[in-house]
Amino acid sequence: MPDSIEDLGWLFVLEPERGGLERQIYRQVLGAILDRRLATGTRLPATRVLAARLGVSRGTVVAAFDQLVAEGYLTARTGRGTAVAALPEELLRAPGESRGSSRRIPSLSRRAADFARARTRGGLEPRCFQSGMPSIDDFPRKEWARCLAARARTIRAADLTYDNGAGLPILREAIVMYLNRARGVVAHPDQVVVIPSSQAGFAVAALCVADPGDVIAMEDPGYHNARTLFVGAGAKVAPVPVDEEGIDVAALAAVSGFRLVAVTPSHQYPTGVTMSLERRLRLLDLASARGAFVLEDDYDSEFRYAERPIASLQGLDGGRNVIYMGTFSKSLAPGIRCAYLVLPESLAPAMALAAPGIGNVVSGPVQAALADFINEGYLTAHVGRMRSIYAEKSRILSETLEDSLPEGCTVPTPRGGLQLLVRLPDRADDVAICTSLAAIGIDARPLSALSVNAGGQGLFLGFALPRPEEIAPAARRLAEVVARHLREAR
Amino acid sequence: MPDSIEDLGWLFVLEPERGGLERQIYRQVLGAILDRRLATGTRLPATRVLAARLGVSRGTVVAAFDQLVAEGYLTARTGRGTAVAALPEELLRAPGESRGSSRRIPSLSRRAADFARARTRGGLEPRCFQSGMPSIDDFPRKEWARCLAARARTIRAADLTYDNGAGLPILREAIVMYLNRARGVVAHPDQVVVIPSSQAGFAVAALCVADPGDVIAMEDPGYHNARTLFVGAGAKVAPVPVDEEGIDVAALAAVSGFRLVAVTPSHQYPTGVTMSLERRLRLLDLASARGAFVLEDDYDSEFRYAERPIASLQGLDGGRNVIYMGTFSKSLAPGIRCAYLVLPESLAPAMALAAPGIGNVVSGPVQAALADFINEGYLTAHVGRMRSIYAEKSRILSETLEDSLPEGCTVPTPRGGLQLLVRLPDRADDVAICTSLAAIGIDARPLSALSVNAGGQGLFLGFALPRPEEIAPAARRLAEVVARHLREAR
Repeated sequence: MPDSIEDLGWLFVLEPERGGLERQIYRQVLGAILDRRLATGTRLPATRVLAARLGVSRGTVVAAFDQLVAEGYLTARTGRGTAVAALPEELLRAPGESRGSSRRIPSLSRRAADFARARTRGGLEPRCFQSGMPSIDDFPRKEWARCLAARARTIRAADLTYDNGAGLPILREAIVMYLNRARGVVAHPDQVVVIPSSQAGFAVAALCVADPGDVIAMEDPGYHNARTLFVGAGAKVAPVPVDEEGIDVAALAAVSGFRLVAVTPSHQYPTGVTMSLERRLRLLDLASARGAFVLEDDYDSEFRYAERPIASLQGLDGGRNVIYMGTFSKSLAPGIRCAYLVLPESLAPAMALAAPGIGNVVSGPVQAALADFINEGYLTAHVGRMRSIYAEKSRILSETLEDSLPEGCTVPTPRGGLQLLVRLPDRADDVAICTSLAAIGIDARPLSALSVNAGGQGLFLGFALPRPEEIAPAARRLAEVVARHLREAR
Repeated sequence: MPDSIEDLGWLFVLEPERGGLERQIYRQVLGAILDRRLATGTRLPATRVLAARLGVSRGTVVAAFDQLVAEGYLTARTGRGTAVAALPEELLRAPGESRGSSRRIPSLSRRAADFARARTRGGLEPRCFQSGMPSIDDFPRKEWARCLAARARTIRAADLTYDNGAGLPILREAIVMYLNRARGVVAHPDQVVVIPSSQAGFAVAALCVADPGDVIAMEDPGYHNARTLFVGAGAKVAPVPVDEEGIDVAALAAVSGFRLVAVTPSHQYPTGVTMSLERRLRLLDLASARGAFVLEDDYDSEFRYAERPIASLQGLDGGRNVIYMGTFSKSLAPGIRCAYLVLPESLAPAMALAAPGIGNVVSGPVQAALADFINEGYLTAHVGRMRSIYAEKSRILSETLEDSLPEGCTVPTPRGGLQLLVRLPDRADDVAICTSLAAIGIDARPLSALSVNAGGQGLFLGFALPRPEEIAPAARRLAEVVARHLREAR
């Protein structure tokens, strides 16, 4: 008898950005009952449990269930929870609606539910403090439109075939030159693979480096969507603690047989720690000794406010064990739909063939336009401009929070990136706080949702998207919500 | 001791389209020796074996090995084959070049080598009779450039965020209307997911429908690159025979627990058979009874020359168990980098979130331009125009082959699609014939490479790419090569 959300499978994949959550829950449960996917007598999870799992208020679930009870589809009995009612056979979708007499509705894989949940969290309409979002207002529309329109008008025969699956040579060259100047990355254009997104990069890395059952290590706390892709590729994921110097290499050394370790050395996701040079060298030594890859996810390293960016792992390594990943989602905008991997030299020929073999390809005109955008200096200029804008936004956020958050909360001095992590006292419930914040239009990600074994409660806040004048008022509203929760948790 | 190409792993991933195969082999072997990946004494495969595996002439491998022997990196002893020579320690890359004292070079996953091989075969420069390629000469450049340039200049804020991961609403609507008219597909735009390629579609379907170890059934002979993606997703692939009515549903029924069956009902890949209506209904019944999905790969169904297209499985099924896949690669050009899935209604909400969660996203302006291209009637007009051009090309190819191929070869009457399968007598060696054809610039795919248990020798030939006047002369050269091979095989 299914009694948890996992058992109900596809049932509750919600799209909060479309609104009408109560209606979505109502319709999905009703559809499942009529389709006989939920049989008579099946007990549904408690509304409190379900609401927590779905990240919606309990009232939303209660309202949906109440309507289904009122309409006779569910029965609610005190102490026995809510169950599917016994319904007249003719009400249910007749098996005759399909040709099979013993019709069974197919279901998705377990990993599909994880992919969908990752997307539900990440794919919201832009909201104040949404993490991972650059400033859309400051996007250089004119320059980008000019580059793309120019390339749209010049289509070569090679742009129409299956050629250049790993990326157009002109963009691979532009990326190498840009990364060399900006990040100390040392590579030949043949080592670059152009992909539609960082998500695709995690998938490509996991599929090309690990076979099912192989171990991939990652930071804990760490980037939850990377975990989803690694698990989806059949890998076992080993969480490794992070301290103030970055990933704990001694703990990593205790993970036997890892094929890949994914790290965010420039600006650890989500703690914001920069990996120390000594830790970098020890990590590369360990990867080299074990014959393992390091995936350097350098998602927002262009934006450092306190000091110059530290050299990339890829540059330190000479491109032997490191797969470097960067994206135009943060430096430009997610909607560009373009990211890239820089592969180790020895494996570049094979992996540059394998990556497009998985189908992660990017339209030629978009690639060519990006190359022009980089080569004409627009990217460097935009990043430089955004660096001071983001530094100012981060200063406003951290200062406002410092002034208004109750005692026991720790606000870091932002030194880079697009987001910061506020630590809360252990008695806080960061998931409940984020639910309350969502109700007032503020998007915060709970630290506990980014952790496996790592303890701690916190709020992960993006400061790049909101306009400067919106930040302080929203931060004060956020602080009030935190203060109320902490008072109640006393 | 490694003695086969499999054991050498990454070593021989060649890029024939870049030329200089001898040099590529020379450099990859030399690099592996200097990096200590091939240790002193390691015996290399026989040049004949290696050449056959790599699909290059034996002379190419011999020339590369000869140079390595002449330079002292390899030793060749009669009766003992070729082995890595004992080299002075200082010649090898010093372990000091890395920081690890016990440095080990990482290797790719087993599935990565398969992805790369799939790409090596598929990613060649366009060549006469290359399968899967539409006519590039006839691409409607002016109309496409106009649509794309117009959309490049109008960028909306929503085009810059993570929104619309499953595709722009305008394109999803255009696809649904087009498919309804052209293919009898019945769906709501929310059931459409836009992806960069059919390869991505196979990956998405396999990852979202099957967990590692689950069974995916497919046609035998069938589309080899789909198999690669299914295996890559951790599925067990069950080959199911194909007869003159399509996939053998009785044989499929004997496959226990399949979660997905991938078929090409309009125009079976590679045999060209159209699945009969009775077989379609039986297939849908079986899928329904088993709670399994049917992946309908409708890659080139727009092009039928003999009769009207038969209704899609998706339309027959009412969109309950069928995942329909189509692509603009055949109807327009592969370089567009856009394809789509139409999902079953009940699972669309979850799968439309899961698919972009894997990172397979397409740039907004390209999607918007495609929507305009469809809505302004350009796609329907282009497909109609190409239908008569391809019908004529297929007629020239089949008539010339009928006249010039030796006895025992069977040339089908082409009724649709972009390619046809010529059957050869059993004594033929289709791999050897394709190697000979490659040497004279003709691209043919051996039937045996598309088969698991299915017997038979044949040549799979694309007729859409070459210009009409090129087809007959190339077909006659092809027939001469086949005749020579068959004489020698007598």
